[in-house]
Amino acid sequence: MKVSLLTIGNELLKGATVNTNASWIGKILFEVGAILDKQLTVQDNDKAIQSALNHLFHDKPNIIIITGGLGPTADDITRETLFKYFGANAVFDQKYWHSLSDYFLKRIGKHISDNNKSQALVPDNGDLIPNPVGSARGFIFNNNETKIFALPGVPMEMKSMMKNTIIPWIINQRPTKLNQLRFRTTGKPESSIAEIVEPILDHYTSCDYGFFPSAYGVDIVVTGETSLEEIDERISNVISNILYTKTDNNIEDLIVETLTQQHKTLGLAESCTGGLIGDRITRVSGSSESFHGGIISYSNHVKENQLNVAHETLITHGAVSEETAKEMAIGVRKNLGTSIGLSSTGIAGPSGGTKEKPVGLVFIGYSDKKITFARKFLFGKNRTMNKIRSSQAALNLIYKELLKENIT
Amino acid sequence: MKVSLLTIGNELLKGATVNTNASWIGKILFEVGAILDKQLTVQDNDKAIQSALNHLFHDKPNIIIITGGLGPTADDITRETLFKYFGANAVFDQKYWHSLSDYFLKRIGKHISDNNKSQALVPDNGDLIPNPVGSARGFIFNNNETKIFALPGVPMEMKSMMKNTIIPWIINQRPTKLNQLRFRTTGKPESSIAEIVEPILDHYTSCDYGFFPSAYGVDIVVTGETSLEEIDERISNVISNILYTKTDNNIEDLIVETLTQQHKTLGLAESCTGGLIGDRITRVSGSSESFHGGIISYSNHVKENQLNVAHETLITHGAVSEETAKEMAIGVRKNLGTSIGLSSTGIAGPSGGTKEKPVGLVFIGYSDKKITFARKFLFGKNRTMNKIRSSQAALNLIYKELLKENIT
Repeated sequence: MKVSLLTIGNELLKGATVNTNASWIGKILFEVGAILDKQLTVQDNDKAIQSALNHLFHDKPNIIIITGGLGPTADDITRETLFKYFGANAVFDQKYWHSLSDYFLKRIGKHISDNNKSQALVPDNGDLIPNPVGSARGFIFNNNETKIFALPGVPMEMKSMMKNTIIPWIINQRPTKLNQLRFRTTGKPESSIAEIVEPILDHYTSCDYGFFPSAYGVDIVVTGETSLEEIDERISNVISNILYTKTDNNIEDLIVETLTQQHKTLGLAESCTGGLIGDRITRVSGSSESFHGGIISYSNHVKENQLNVAHETLITHGAVSEETAKEMAIGVRKNLGTSIGLSSTGIAGPSGGTKEKPVGLVFIGYSDKKITFARKFLFGKNRTMNKIRSSQAALNLIYKELLKENIT
Repeated sequence: MKVSLLTIGNELLKGATVNTNASWIGKILFEVGAILDKQLTVQDNDKAIQSALNHLFHDKPNIIIITGGLGPTADDITRETLFKYFGANAVFDQKYWHSLSDYFLKRIGKHISDNNKSQALVPDNGDLIPNPVGSARGFIFNNNETKIFALPGVPMEMKSMMKNTIIPWIINQRPTKLNQLRFRTTGKPESSIAEIVEPILDHYTSCDYGFFPSAYGVDIVVTGETSLEEIDERISNVISNILYTKTDNNIEDLIVETLTQQHKTLGLAESCTGGLIGDRITRVSGSSESFHGGIISYSNHVKENQLNVAHETLITHGAVSEETAKEMAIGVRKNLGTSIGLSSTGIAGPSGGTKEKPVGLVFIGYSDKKITFARKFLFGKNRTMNKIRSSQAALNLIYKELLKENIT
């Protein structure tokens, strides 16, 4: 199934908004076996929209998705333009207008402005797409073999309508069910993963796959109409050392869930990550049950006084060392009274490196009642990336330790 | 000057990569007075690229910028497709090939692969765009009134070539110099800012402006060929309470710079932000000179034991209160021995709110030798946004305090 996407909005072309709608739509389409073939962004301008639609129809896609310009303000001209383009008469939906007016009065405490009346207009030759989280409903038009879905550009509303209406419609069009595998990995670059995974996947000509790299790691998504069990087993085998989940979850979600299940508590001692690990853990709602807090020990002074790292350790081995990482993890566990202590210390860069301890050198320390250890990593030259990769390495390390408990 | 942008790459359409190139290009073009009129993404496929170019030429833009597909691998077909499209013969640049081979041997320690030979091909009817940070050079073609610039898709390389070649060319085309103002603000939504700023800006018909909102605040950029001094004064006046800089810098850059200048040190006591303030401060290279560290005090236990918040304060006023915020700021300043203590405590949500203390309620505390105070904020319902907005409020608060010192 071939899909074209038209995203409408001056804010996208001025760079005031990054077009995350386009990548989100591309990804979710791929996951249900549809292919985003082309994406076009134009200004809020009826001539530009018409010319864009003419161009997109030329390729005869099965679906055209349009986002943006369905709001109540003067520059929201998509509705009117589409009605004209598809020869639709606008019918005023009195019932919807009443419910919208009621909603405004009750929830916002104001009388609705007449500007919003455009949101109650319905095409006489098209269908409506309900909007579960906003007031701008979407439209469906049919043009020869192409189905046109028009959605608002507000990401939360667009996503909700995609998930509730368009994606189910696409799935429903398939003669057979599409199976999907997801592997979330961390610790190896895309090219190395491709080297070991592609030779396997290329055997199965009936399945499609994609690599989705980010600073946190690489996700592999495999889709196919036949059973994917064999692929699952073979891929899981060759990437077992870098795989952390086959679900949609982030690693911080998994850690908070597992800590809570195991009735464990966590304390952090962050040096080179500067608070990023704590930030990531506390992004998870409910993390306060197991996460007690941490010490951001950027200076040696704080490492000594708040974490009881021995002065001698810092002198002999340096702040960036296996020994210091271990003492930091022990220190935070004891001082905060948590079951686990997790630490990071490294040279984030771009300056501060030496021949023995180059930029990108990082130690992650772990300590619980039974065991204390530290692992060494060597990342790159970029400060921001080194911080992110250190946080991911730390989270991956503690998650692996937590999983051992589940096995025994 | 009208510009169209063609971004080429399957990874963009599959959603594996967010098209940040497009928004970056849109923004930098706007800043030099050019208008990105249309943006198109197609697959790495010669027919798709040709059809896209035909469509873009139809609008007669002054410039077409093309990104992606100039690398050495098999799916990098942009070079060949463009040579064919613009009727160019490929000339092998022996000199460049030698320097590229040398570079590989010296820096990467390997003989260059023959795959890279395509990167030494030059069109006989076009010009080259030097690549200061990579091996894929860009191309310039002329087609009637349209100038075509083709660049690699790697963001670092694309940006460097835009800044060094294309932007100077655009500026040079202007008969008069374009002046620019930038105002970075935080603490008010785009709509409220527009209400007070637009009536002023709309007086000056010769200037153009844009609002660039993000979770951190709203930037206002004004461009015009006439003097912008009067606008500068009038806008600065009406937004003085939310303006933090007229430069390109982030607020964390400004804080680290000012702390260093004033020989001050900073300690953080983070509850609802969970480490995010520390993460942001330590994104700045050189922050270790003034940033000593912090206490992430997610539990009350840590607030009492590591920050010396009085048990009675927590019982009487609660963890989310002006009193607790102040005691946290004092506690971290004293325990870490820094000149300034900065704290955050709040209800990030989505659960945990009460009628008296709803989700989004946040207190930011500040303490130095002379003064200790806390400010109350009420943000929204979204956990991630509440954390970001709390961190921004905290950074804005300390920056304002640091600036007072500069005045006296």
